[in-house]
Amino acid sequence: MNIDGRPTRTIWLADDGATVEVIDQTRLPHRVSTKRLASLADAADAIRTMVVRGAPLIGVTAAYGLALAMREDASDEGISRAVETLAATRPTAVNLRWALDRMAAALTRPEVNDRVAAAYRLAAEMADEDVATCRAIGEHGATLIRDAHDRTGRTVNVLTHCNAGWLAAVDWGTALAPVYVAHDAGVPVHVWVDETRPRNQGAALTAFELGQHGVPHTILADNAGGHIMQHGRVDLCIVGSDRTTASGDVANKIGTYLKALAARDNGVPFYAALPASTIDWRLDDGVAEIPIEERGPREVTHMTGRTETGDIVTVEIASPGSPAANPAFDVTPARLVTGIITERGIAAASREGLASLFPEHAPRPR
Amino acid sequence: MNIDGRPTRTIWLADDGATVEVIDQTRLPHRVSTKRLASLADAADAIRTMVVRGAPLIGVTAAYGLALAMREDASDEGISRAVETLAATRPTAVNLRWALDRMAAALTRPEVNDRVAAAYRLAAEMADEDVATCRAIGEHGATLIRDAHDRTGRTVNVLTHCNAGWLAAVDWGTALAPVYVAHDAGVPVHVWVDETRPRNQGAALTAFELGQHGVPHTILADNAGGHIMQHGRVDLCIVGSDRTTASGDVANKIGTYLKALAARDNGVPFYAALPASTIDWRLDDGVAEIPIEERGPREVTHMTGRTETGDIVTVEIASPGSPAANPAFDVTPARLVTGIITERGIAAASREGLASLFPEHAPRPR
Repeated sequence: MNIDGRPTRTIWLADDGATVEVIDQTRLPHRVSTKRLASLADAADAIRTMVVRGAPLIGVTAAYGLALAMREDASDEGISRAVETLAATRPTAVNLRWALDRMAAALTRPEVNDRVAAAYRLAAEMADEDVATCRAIGEHGATLIRDAHDRTGRTVNVLTHCNAGWLAAVDWGTALAPVYVAHDAGVPVHVWVDETRPRNQGAALTAFELGQHGVPHTILADNAGGHIMQHGRVDLCIVGSDRTTASGDVANKIGTYLKALAARDNGVPFYAALPASTIDWRLDDGVAEIPIEERGPREVTHMTGRTETGDIVTVEIASPGSPAANPAFDVTPARLVTGIITERGIAAASREGLASLFPEHAPRPR
Repeated sequence: MNIDGRPTRTIWLADDGATVEVIDQTRLPHRVSTKRLASLADAADAIRTMVVRGAPLIGVTAAYGLALAMREDASDEGISRAVETLAATRPTAVNLRWALDRMAAALTRPEVNDRVAAAYRLAAEMADEDVATCRAIGEHGATLIRDAHDRTGRTVNVLTHCNAGWLAAVDWGTALAPVYVAHDAGVPVHVWVDETRPRNQGAALTAFELGQHGVPHTILADNAGGHIMQHGRVDLCIVGSDRTTASGDVANKIGTYLKALAARDNGVPFYAALPASTIDWRLDDGVAEIPIEERGPREVTHMTGRTETGDIVTVEIASPGSPAANPAFDVTPARLVTGIITERGIAAASREGLASLFPEHAPRPR
């Protein structure tokens, strides 16, 4: 998608053919700047501190992180150590694990001397694949927006939570890919953007990328979504996912579950859009089984923004001395999910639904 | 309740016997300061700009505002004009209207010359009544906390939204009164404090007053309430109300409805605590009939807090140029409300339930 009219990805190999550049998402929306990752430690840091974030982008960054690690130590032990370091950065997103396993399996095959080149090749491949996957999610999901428009003749109002746009992937995004495909095809669409406390990825990233691409949108406090659904102002919810169980439970940014409840209460269809790499086929019960990352209290008690004079400043917004809790994700049970939009099509949020699209993962061979 | 160990109210007559002092709630939690209201215009401004907020406190401030207005013009026309000015400040809270009607009815009776004294007398009476009413709400509601403790033997975890504590009333509060009564009686209680975007009354006011009174509490992003209920970490929700229909629908701070949905989905009892003055006996269907105040977008896109050096600074947190919507309240349908805690006891959230406690408002005489 575009920044200042120029097609941009979130991650790319630098001109030196060795280091990796990423958009520094901790500085958006106030500064568009890039960060250069030159080592395994840089890549792990970038994921941990959320310079890059979003399940698909975390996966690709981890892949490049392994490539950088191969330049430092391409031995079997080096691979294991790098996988361990990168896997420990974020506990909830499963495509981090998926990307690392795929890289590790591919890297232990070639001679030690060939591993650097192989790692860069595969990381680049995974980045390109991610773009194609997200684009396919967009094509499938756009049919929902087109159908809603055909039914009502009005602008279609899509509510989304957090940022599952192109900034969360390499390009296109997951939840926002259908919006971009529909918008580019001339279907009138407007996005309600949950600000997504405590890190404000909605107000800071989703609003930024929709604005840059010219998609009409309105920011809302997370609290407001139920109210606008009660008043018929949402046609469709689409969110991303950081981990999805084989039974269709969806772990996504904290607060997603509340929107799914409101959607159900008001008859609004609620979809999760995700690449198959986000599905953890070993899991059945998301609430019980998916580990939920607990982040620091300062994300809740403090807020960073831009002053009128252009300085970026962090201010304390809570009563000093009060403790804060900060679970980063919640789990939306499959019973609240209308469907799951994947690169192979839209499935019911159930074991049967997902298995019908991904028979290679079904418990019994067909 | 206490600030720095000293019992304090939110509003009082100044030593000069004419002007009115209030705690300036726009400066909390960073500064404890008072503001002096010397005229009708001052009182209307204080309500409009949320120097004072919370349904009960708005009502008492409006009463004192009429007293100030009587010093300027005590004619019948002066009363009407002052009522109109004050009624226009906030559209959702109904005790504003209730307080004004009560004052106006009492003021048109005496001679013009006696109206100033009568107005101050009645405003002071209404302030004292509010304290007694909130205290009674606390006594009734505390039985729920005591019962939960007796049942589990553990600390009782109460989740609340926004600030319906003593800062929202003259003293004690509505939703927090049961917490204070239980805490003061030695029942172990811990409060989950929704930060309550966009104005952060939870993180700024509720956390502040609970901290000052020594009640254990933890601030949460509004998004987190569903997750902690899924994991059994909430025993009871108690919220306030700005307007309640005769049928038990509850208009309260935006986001309340989402918490009620989560409570229902997880079998957590959900109560609204409110004085009878908050009940609009003319209304049946809250979602259709209660006007919802739409506030400015800047409350969503900007945030004020304290820098490390102690300066109070406003920063822009959203993507510049993106529009924002800001509905200030939502309506929780009675079907999601376990009970309504009033000064006369706890009623079912239904026409029958409320009428049984307030038979004088029942449609037919008994």
